[in-house]
Amino acid sequence: MGLEISGYSGLVLEKLVSINAKIGDLVIIRYNGSEYSGILMPRAQIGSDSNHIVIKLSSGYNIGIKLSSSSEVALLKRGKRKKKTVADKPPEINSNLPNVSILSTGGTIASKVDYQTGAVNPALSAQDFYDTVPELRVHADVKAKVLMSALSENIHPTDWTRIAKAVASEIRKGTDGIVIAHGTDTMAFTSAALSFALQNLPVPVALVGSQRSSDRPSSDSAMNLIRATDLVGRIDAAEVMVVMHGETDDSFAYAHRGTRVRKSHTSRRDAFQSPNFYPLFKITSSNFEEISLPLLRRDSKRKLKMKASFEDRVGMIRTHPGIKASLIESLIESDYKGIVIEGSGLGHVPQVLQSAIKRAIDSEIIVAMTSQCISGRVDMNVYRTGVELLEMGVLPCEDMLTETALVKLMWALANFKNIQDVRTMMLTPLVGEISMRSEMAQYTRIGREKE
Amino acid sequence: MGLEISGYSGLVLEKLVSINAKIGDLVIIRYNGSEYSGILMPRAQIGSDSNHIVIKLSSGYNIGIKLSSSSEVALLKRGKRKKKTVADKPPEINSNLPNVSILSTGGTIASKVDYQTGAVNPALSAQDFYDTVPELRVHADVKAKVLMSALSENIHPTDWTRIAKAVASEIRKGTDGIVIAHGTDTMAFTSAALSFALQNLPVPVALVGSQRSSDRPSSDSAMNLIRATDLVGRIDAAEVMVVMHGETDDSFAYAHRGTRVRKSHTSRRDAFQSPNFYPLFKITSSNFEEISLPLLRRDSKRKLKMKASFEDRVGMIRTHPGIKASLIESLIESDYKGIVIEGSGLGHVPQVLQSAIKRAIDSEIIVAMTSQCISGRVDMNVYRTGVELLEMGVLPCEDMLTETALVKLMWALANFKNIQDVRTMMLTPLVGEISMRSEMAQYTRIGREKE
Repeated sequence: MGLEISGYSGLVLEKLVSINAKIGDLVIIRYNGSEYSGILMPRAQIGSDSNHIVIKLSSGYNIGIKLSSSSEVALLKRGKRKKKTVADKPPEINSNLPNVSILSTGGTIASKVDYQTGAVNPALSAQDFYDTVPELRVHADVKAKVLMSALSENIHPTDWTRIAKAVASEIRKGTDGIVIAHGTDTMAFTSAALSFALQNLPVPVALVGSQRSSDRPSSDSAMNLIRATDLVGRIDAAEVMVVMHGETDDSFAYAHRGTRVRKSHTSRRDAFQSPNFYPLFKITSSNFEEISLPLLRRDSKRKLKMKASFEDRVGMIRTHPGIKASLIESLIESDYKGIVIEGSGLGHVPQVLQSAIKRAIDSEIIVAMTSQCISGRVDMNVYRTGVELLEMGVLPCEDMLTETALVKLMWALANFKNIQDVRTMMLTPLVGEISMRSEMAQYTRIGREKE
Repeated sequence: MGLEISGYSGLVLEKLVSINAKIGDLVIIRYNGSEYSGILMPRAQIGSDSNHIVIKLSSGYNIGIKLSSSSEVALLKRGKRKKKTVADKPPEINSNLPNVSILSTGGTIASKVDYQTGAVNPALSAQDFYDTVPELRVHADVKAKVLMSALSENIHPTDWTRIAKAVASEIRKGTDGIVIAHGTDTMAFTSAALSFALQNLPVPVALVGSQRSSDRPSSDSAMNLIRATDLVGRIDAAEVMVVMHGETDDSFAYAHRGTRVRKSHTSRRDAFQSPNFYPLFKITSSNFEEISLPLLRRDSKRKLKMKASFEDRVGMIRTHPGIKASLIESLIESDYKGIVIEGSGLGHVPQVLQSAIKRAIDSEIIVAMTSQCISGRVDMNVYRTGVELLEMGVLPCEDMLTETALVKLMWALANFKNIQDVRTMMLTPLVGEISMRSEMAQYTRIGREKE
């Protein structure tokens, strides 16, 4: 049988052999009164578990099912043998290409399916992941490096420092641009962190992720990676950006400013948006269209200013009816250095939190205010609640995203000793994270009418 | 001078008299090197403070400025005397109108400017607020009642109970519909709370607010109030809804489902949106256009089922890089009964929180998961992090809004004793708060391209 039912052993292998099933066949599994049908998938680790069978459901997701001797496996339809595709042979390489460094941190873009749980795990090797997109070589002379292999929900502020240092090292070596493969869950936090850590950039840095793993037909990983590599190699800009699909199909990608972007949909390929702002570039297969306004331009002689430390004793509190002051008090007692409050509306909190906020500020904790509305701007001069908070010393974060304000406060607290300097930094636009005025067009109503 | 500089006394009155300034004149104030110009506004409380002058800036906002004897006040332009408008005389009343009860809870829609701080405070009298919109009498035989006078950031779950009981009382008296005037900051929380508290409604309930106070030319309070009153008097629906502007101009309003709506902009009049869903009705001055699908229809004989208790020991935690498990541990120690975690992506948390979450569940605390993406659906079967959390007993909230999940958990914990019943309630669609499948069209990209 060999590769045709690769990875299976024991009970599952026995059942598959008995029905002469091969990888790629449509099978049905019946157990405990349930039925699942799907395409038989290979197992990654031979011999790790002999009781799980992995199938790809019609939804495109893989599941692992634990079989017992009473479970039934039947063949529904014979699969087609996969042909070698054009992508299997590496394309021709041009000798005059820009140098691009790809740093892999993990995430779906660098992931493989875990055939034991049926879930997706980050891959371990950058080579694996680079080999799957041979088209990259058309756009750049690419050097790939694995920095870490983390699901992005586990990225910690200390990882931001590590990534920033790795970027600085590539810049010292004279790269023309850097692509960072990253999980999408916290990619916007990392892009904000790198924006503050790597000021005065000489060349562009693009974070790139994937909303669908590369074993799915709808995967966005190859296109995002190719567009990001092409962009950082050639574009006349030196900003930290996030490159992701602009629409749900493969028509184009957007490069968002690193301090302005958030993941705004759980699963769509065009999940990344820039509320209160515009993307910087629209990237098609042939063209970079510049959309937004003042940009830091590429200048290989510009000297990078790195401030890559982050204070992790910074909390984020979102207000709601029934919230208790003890939440803030426990942050004071745990020696937190900063708190970002995502208040309601223009920047308000329930009265019941006010004395705890005052106590926090009296304890030299920086308290900054953003809005849970996401779109729009904090304005604490309109209502009495806001005025009172301003008088206490709460910092109004203007139109900054909550995620960006949190990262900026972590950064400012670690890099400036004087509390007054930290306060000033929070209110000063440093890398495009705050606009002093908003444009009306930057708000689109969602979920309006049925089409 | 009399009314022409009403409310001013002492130093400010002296300066105004010296330049012969009247309310409505454009004045300029110079002090400590700063300059502010704006329309001279009246003061509300005579004699309360003789050192503040209140002007309306060109932005439309009022500010209060404290004068000293060295401050200079000069007249820039004489204002026009205000003419009586058509709205000043009450319109004709039709005798065959529906009965609508308006309950006022406070907020901008029922607010007056506080001329001491220059900020906006809730008005004290429902009559005041009802008198300002005489057009209401065209649409319904209106009875107005002041329930409370709160800025909505201060609304507490016990207020939801109070509002629900007041609605039930109006229903018992045979009203055709109920309008609740409410601050916009937490209006979506209250609408969700009333949706769960007032099941099996016979008539519609509409919450209505205002993003701009009624002393501003751009105020949306009259239109929203009129549209909501018209809607609940006549519409064939018996749902809890939020009625707010559909666009930034006065063209139409939307009635959103109470469990599906969130405030999505700090200041725009069309701030309310229904992510993952559609509004129920589009309301023009002449027409109600039905947009969405299955609705509970009006039936005055239907018997209201009221379950209006809420457990306030429910926390909301939004994950981020650097978040610490002590946040969850402090909720366990404070005897919380439920926690809504707004995780990343499809419903993930950093590994570092996992053991605290397990400890919470082992302590019989209900832990529910939503996504900070806002749009889309939690799916914890795709990645290992999600699978592990599901196995621990974390409840996946599907496409429910975080705000709605929080309110639902507060409600379920207060109304069902058995923990298994609470878990079942959380996962069961009760009043349209969960859809079992999503439509792609329900996501619109924001901040795309410059127009």
